[in-house]
Amino acid sequence: MRPDDANVAGNVHGGTILKMIEEAGAIISTRHCNSQNGERCVAALARVERTDFLSPMCIGEVAHVSAEITYASKHSVEVQVHVTSENILTGTKKLTNKATLWYVPLSLKNVDKVLEVPPVVYSRQEQEEEGRKRYEAQKLERMETKWRNGDIVQPVLNPGKPNTVSYSQSSLIHLVGPSDCTLHGFVHGGVTMKLMDEVAGIVAARHCKTNIVTASVDAINFHDKIRKGCVITISGRMTFTSNKSMEIEVLVDADPVVDNSQKRYRAASAFFTYVSLSQEGKPLPVPQLVPETEDEKKRFEEGKGRYLQMKAKRQGQTEPQA
Amino acid sequence: MRPDDANVAGNVHGGTILKMIEEAGAIISTRHCNSQNGERCVAALARVERTDFLSPMCIGEVAHVSAEITYASKHSVEVQVHVTSENILTGTKKLTNKATLWYVPLSLKNVDKVLEVPPVVYSRQEQEEEGRKRYEAQKLERMETKWRNGDIVQPVLNPGKPNTVSYSQSSLIHLVGPSDCTLHGFVHGGVTMKLMDEVAGIVAARHCKTNIVTASVDAINFHDKIRKGCVITISGRMTFTSNKSMEIEVLVDADPVVDNSQKRYRAASAFFTYVSLSQEGKPLPVPQLVPETEDEKKRFEEGKGRYLQMKAKRQGQTEPQA
Amino acid sequence: MRPDDANVAGNVHGGTILKMIEEAGAIISTRHCNSQNGERCVAALARVERTDFLSPMCIGEVAHVSAEITYASKHSVEVQVHVTSENILTGTKKLTNKATLWYVPLSLKNVDKVLEVPPVVYSRQEQEEEGRKRYEAQKLERMETKWRNGDIVQPVLNPGKPNTVSYSQSSLIHLVGPSDCTLHGFVHGGVTMKLMDEVAGIVAARHCKTNIVTASVDAINFHDKIRKGCVITISGRMTFTSNKSMEIEVLVDADPVVDNSQKRYRAASAFFTYVSLSQEGKPLPVPQLVPETEDEKKRFEEGKGRYLQMKAKRQGQTEPQA
Repeated sequence: MRPDDANVAGNVHGGTILKMIEEAGAIISTRHCNSQNGERCVAALARVERTDFLSPMCIGEVAHVSAEITYASKHSVEVQVHVTSENILTGTKKLTNKATLWYVPLSLKNVDKVLEVPPVVYSRQEQEEEGRKRYEAQKLERMETKWRNGDIVQPVLNPGKPNTVSYSQSSLIHLVGPSDCTLHGFVHGGVTMKLMDEVAGIVAARHCKTNIVTASVDAINFHDKIRKGCVITISGRMTFTSNKSMEIEVLVDADPVVDNSQKRYRAASAFFTYVSLSQEGKPLPVPQLVPETEDEKKRFEEGKGRYLQMKAKRQGQTEPQA
Repeated sequence: MRPDDANVAGNVHGGTILKMIEEAGAIISTRHCNSQNGERCVAALARVERTDFLSPMCIGEVAHVSAEITYASKHSVEVQVHVTSENILTGTKKLTNKATLWYVPLSLKNVDKVLEVPPVVYSRQEQEEEGRKRYEAQKLERMETKWRNGDIVQPVLNPGKPNTVSYSQSSLIHLVGPSDCTLHGFVHGGVTMKLMDEVAGIVAARHCKTNIVTASVDAINFHDKIRKGCVITISGRMTFTSNKSMEIEVLVDADPVVDNSQKRYRAASAFFTYVSLSQEGKPLPVPQLVPETEDEKKRFEEGKGRYLQMKAKRQGQTEPQA
Repeated sequence: MRPDDANVAGNVHGGTILKMIEEAGAIISTRHCNSQNGERCVAALARVERTDFLSPMCIGEVAHVSAEITYASKHSVEVQVHVTSENILTGTKKLTNKATLWYVPLSLKNVDKVLEVPPVVYSRQEQEEEGRKRYEAQKLERMETKWRNGDIVQPVLNPGKPNTVSYSQSSLIHLVGPSDCTLHGFVHGGVTMKLMDEVAGIVAARHCKTNIVTASVDAINFHDKIRKGCVITISGRMTFTSNKSMEIEVLVDADPVVDNSQKRYRAASAFFTYVSLSQEGKPLPVPQLVPETEDEKKRFEEGKGRYLQMKAKRQGQTEPQA
C-alpha cells in the first residue's frame, strides 16, 4: 500500500480495497468462463454483496487478496474474496475484508451478448444448493434496487446549515479515460467503486470535519455497464446517522456525451457506512443529521431501518451457540 | 506520452502538457531561488501567461520540455518553457507550446513567508528592462482578475436545452491527496491546471458532442495556495462561441473541510479555448452558444471582446514586418 | 521524485529508477532503429546488465536520466544509461546508477518479426570491438539463464519458521492494463522491472523486518514479451544471505487468461540484492537464511558463488593501479 492509496492519516481508502477485490474477481471469473473451448469472453461485474471493513489497512502494509469461485448459475458466477493486511515488519496479519461478487460473461465479439458459464465442481454436495439460494436472493434484490434507485440527485443551489443533507451533498464528474477501461471498452467495476467511495468520503468529511473511514458497503448493483467516452456523475448524499456512524447513498449516472443517440442512465448505486475517528483511531460521536424535506425524512427512516436490521443481525451472530 | 495522458482519439490532454510545463518551471525556479546561501525555499506557482497549443501531441510521441529563467523581480521569477513533440518513428519534431510562468519563493520554515529572489544575470542589457515591463503588466492584470472572478458558479438545477450555458456547465470535486502535493503541504500548480483542463474539456464535449482539444489557455492566476486536506471544486461554464471555437471559464474554489476556522476561498481562475475536430483532425463548426440570463449575455460580450482582441493581435503578428 | 515513488523512509524504490532507465532506453533505441528509411519498428527490451545502486535517491530530488547508444549488432542495440540525483535546495548532485540495456527492434506490422538495426558511428575504433565482446558475452549468458530459470515457484502452503525460505516467499499477481503497454500491445520492460523490484522488496522486508533498499540487480533477461490481456505472476524467494546483504530470485510468468490456445510461459527472471538499513541509513546485519530443502541448499550455494565472484571483482576494481 502506497501513500497514494491512503488518506492523510495513513489509512487506505475503502475504495482502493474494493478496486483490488474487483481485480481479483475479474481475473478468476474471466479465467473460469474461458476454461472450455467456445466463444472467448470477459467477465463484467454485476453485483457486490454487502461487505464490512473489519480492520483498517495502513500505508506500508502488504495486502493479500485471494479469490475463489463458489457458485455458477447458467449466466453468472459468484466469487468470494478475502483480503488480509500484513505488517511485514512485525509479521502481524489481520482479516480486513470478506466480499462476494457476481460476474456475467460477455462475448468478446459483442459485449452486449451474455454467454454461458462452464459448470463448477463443488467439493461438498450442499454447496450447489446453498449457492443457488444466494443466487435467487440477490437476483430478487437487484430487481428491487433498480426501481428504488430511480430518482435523480438534484444539485444543491444554496447549501444549507451544518448537519443538513444539502450541506454535505457532493458530486464528482469523471470523463472515462482509456486506463479506466478493460481492453474491451467498458469501465472496470473496481474503478467505479473507487470513485463511489471517494464521493462518499467527501460527504462524510464535510459532515463531521474529522478523519473518516469506510466501515461497510451495502450491496452495490451494477445496472448497466459504462462505456468508454462517457462522462459519469457520481453523487453522494447523507441519508442517516446513528451515534457513531453515517450512511451515505451514492448513485452513478452515465452520460454518453459523444454518442447523441443514447440517453443518460443509472449505472450503479449503493449505500456506504462511514465512521469518524479521533487522532488515536478511536470512534468519535457523529453530529446528528437534520433531515429537512419530506424525501430526506423518508430516506432517514429507511436508513434507520437498514441500520437496526444490521445491528440485530450482528448481535445474533455473536450470541453464544446453544 | 501514454494512453493515460490522452483522450480516446489519441490526442494528449492540454492539462497533461500544462502539468509537465509547471513541473519544469517549479524545478528551475526552486533551483534558482536556492542558488545563494540563506533560508531554503520552494517555488510556488503564481501565474501562467496566455498560451497557445500550436500543434497536437499524440500517444507514443516523446515530449521535450525545456525551461529558462528570463526575469527576476525582488519576490518573483519569470520562467519561459518550450514544449516540442517528437515522433521517434518518423523523426518529426514540432513546437507544441510556449509558456511563461511566474513563481514566488516560499520559506520552507513557514510557507506563508515570501523570500527574496537572487538576481539573474542577463545576456543582453535590454532583457532586464523588457522583463520589468512584463512583470508590471502581469501584476496589474492579476489584481484585476482577482476581483473580476469573485462570483460563484451556482450548480444547475434543471439543465436547460442544448446549446445553453446551463446544459454544459460542469463541476468536479477533488479531495487533495498526498501525491497532489509538494513535500511542504500545498498542491502543485500543475495538478490544479490539469483538473481545470479536465473540467473545461467536459464542458466543451457536452456542448458539441465531438472530439475536442485545447486550443489555448488565457492567463491563469493563482490567487492563493491550496493546502493538503482541502476539497477543491473546479467549475466550468461556457462563456462564448465563435464559428470554430468555444471559450470556457474555469474557477477553482478550495474548501478546508477539516479545519473549521477557515472559509472557502477562490484559489485560481482562467479561460480555456477549445476547438472541435472531425475524425480526420479538421476543425469543425461549433454549435452557437445561447446565453439566457443577463449575466450570461454580459459574459458572452466579454468573451467576444477577448476573442476579437486576440484575433487582431494574431493578424498583427503575421503581417510582414516593415 | 514524489511520495508515491518511495518507501516509508523516503528512499525511492529501485524499481522506480529501473522504470525510468528503461523509458530512456526505449526512446533512444526506437529512435535509432527508425533512423533509416524502411519498415517502422519499436524497440523491445531483451536484457538489462547487472547494475548497482550507488547512492540513494530521495523524495523531492530531481532525477536526471541520460542515455547513449554504445553498440549495435545486426538485430540488437546496446544502450548505456546514467542516472544522477539532484537536490535542488542544496544543489548537491550524485551518480545513483549506471546501467546497460539491450533492445531488439520489432516490426510495427508484425511484432513477432525482428528487423535489422542501422549501423552506429563509433567515435573510437576500439568501441566496436569492445561492444562485440559484450554482445557475445550477454548472448551466451542469456541462453544459459533461459534453462536455469525453468523451474516453477510453488506457492507456499504452510509458511515455515522465521529465516526460512518459505517464510518470506511472496507472489504478486497483476492484470495487464492499457497503461502498462506500448501502443503495440506488449508490456513495457520498465513496468515489469518495477513489479519485480516490488516483490523482491516485500521478500526482503519480511525476512529482516527493517527498512530495506535495493543494492544491485543482477542481469535481467526478458525471455519473451508479455502481451496485453495477460495476467502476470511475479514470484520472489530468498536464495542467499551474506552478513549484510540478501539475494532474492524473482521470476515472472505470464498467463493469457482469455486466449486458451497459449500456455503459461516464463517471461523474465533476475536476482536482486537488498541491504537492510538502520534509521540513520547505516547498513545493518541481516538474519541468516536457513535453507531447508535440497533445492534451497543448492540455490544458496549458487548465490554464495555469485556473491563471492562479485566481491572479488569489486576488490579488483578498487586496487591501486600499478
